[in-house]
Amino acid sequence: MKHMENQTLKIVKIGGKLIEDQKKFREFLKDFAALNGPKILVHGGGKMATEVADKLGVKTQMFEGRRITDADSIKVITMVYAGLINKNIVADLQGLGANAVGLTGADGMSVISRQRPVKEVDYGLVGDVEQVNAAFIESLLKQGLIPVFSAITCTTEGQLLNTNADSIAAAIATEMSAQADTRLYFCFEKKGVLADAGDDASVIPEINRLRYRELLEEGVISDGMLPKLHNCFQALEQGVEEIYLGDYRLLQNETMRTKIIE
Amino acid sequence: MKHMENQTLKIVKIGGKLIEDQKKFREFLKDFAALNGPKILVHGGGKMATEVADKLGVKTQMFEGRRITDADSIKVITMVYAGLINKNIVADLQGLGANAVGLTGADGMSVISRQRPVKEVDYGLVGDVEQVNAAFIESLLKQGLIPVFSAITCTTEGQLLNTNADSIAAAIATEMSAQADTRLYFCFEKKGVLADAGDDASVIPEINRLRYRELLEEGVISDGMLPKLHNCFQALEQGVEEIYLGDYRLLQNETMRTKIIE
Repeated sequence: MKHMENQTLKIVKIGGKLIEDQKKFREFLKDFAALNGPKILVHGGGKMATEVADKLGVKTQMFEGRRITDADSIKVITMVYAGLINKNIVADLQGLGANAVGLTGADGMSVISRQRPVKEVDYGLVGDVEQVNAAFIESLLKQGLIPVFSAITCTTEGQLLNTNADSIAAAIATEMSAQADTRLYFCFEKKGVLADAGDDASVIPEINRLRYRELLEEGVISDGMLPKLHNCFQALEQGVEEIYLGDYRLLQNETMRTKIIE
Repeated sequence: MKHMENQTLKIVKIGGKLIEDQKKFREFLKDFAALNGPKILVHGGGKMATEVADKLGVKTQMFEGRRITDADSIKVITMVYAGLINKNIVADLQGLGANAVGLTGADGMSVISRQRPVKEVDYGLVGDVEQVNAAFIESLLKQGLIPVFSAITCTTEGQLLNTNADSIAAAIATEMSAQADTRLYFCFEKKGVLADAGDDASVIPEINRLRYRELLEEGVISDGMLPKLHNCFQALEQGVEEIYLGDYRLLQNETMRTKIIE
């Protein structure tokens, strides 16, 4: 039985680019604060960490768009993601009357991970999510609190690990789907999945698994969208009810976003 | 009636200097992790924030040993205190089997403050504690979680403020004393209050209000100890049961520390 019956839990993931655009981000936070019912925010960090790293003289190494995280990098990431970005979001939400609590996966062992094994590339201190502590998250939600997760997780041995924010959001949504109906929002640069990559107005309003296969065959889905949609259908398979993809207005603008269902 | 009857809540405050001494800090964390019963850690930051500020090109202005906190400084403090230091303490405690949750006063509005009014000096974004959210802290303690507070608080309008860690620890202890017997530990450089400032072995084992007055009259208490002891007796008056002053071994070494009682 679901503990949080008759309530839809909304999990919203936002990327680093949105956080950097103060005006849009402020608008997004207002929409998020106004959302009814239990909700969770998961945020990335992106370029800001690189900027701080540069100033501190810490080299940023990337491989295929992913950060290689050494001992100095994880310090910078912890400062920027869990400190600067996370606590400013929490304070901003408090100012908007939304009672937020900022977390990493280490806090209450809410998101436990394992260091990614070395294959072709050694990503260093990068984690893959292993376990989400639903009881702790639920205890916060039941008090009307809003967990705000930065993209850092922790091993059972107490090692902080840089972790993909999309994966954290999907893992939390999946785990919490045993307690409540869960709806996952991925907020990115585009207004949704586009039928024509060059036309921002060509948002496909709804995609189910059948349509997804058709779109794949038609070659409509661009390379960047492939892993995102793959993860979406995996999350739906594991219990998440609905997933939405869209830009920073996706919480208010119900006509300009893509809904993904089984 | 106290909600957390028959339990002694221990609140331990540590300074920035201890955090910088890796070996001593590790020993302290082991002792802290091994403490029985509900407990809370409050930590300062100190020199580390100044070092990061220097590297980032943010000027540190001090007045009588206190930091003047402008908009850039509060960003650095949030990175270093709430990010780097706080989350590393949480992860280290997790590695020691102690289930910690890292917080600022903004998280769950756990410690609400007001910006210090400008008198002779404008300290900028510095807060004085106004209110502690005992219900939220108690909800964590009841789950066996260990709140770890960094020295940052938040106004009701959502402004993060740099706040003295001693004051945060005393305010939490005072507020929580309505729910549980509370014991406050101030961990600093000295082994306790010294009868002879030049002799580290001259720790006064116990001081009550009467003895405090005698020591004041005898001129035994040094300038640096005056505000600390004043705050201690204020906390005792407001319901805290016992206060201990000592160095990083004060949790294990019951003979080398000063106990303050009414």
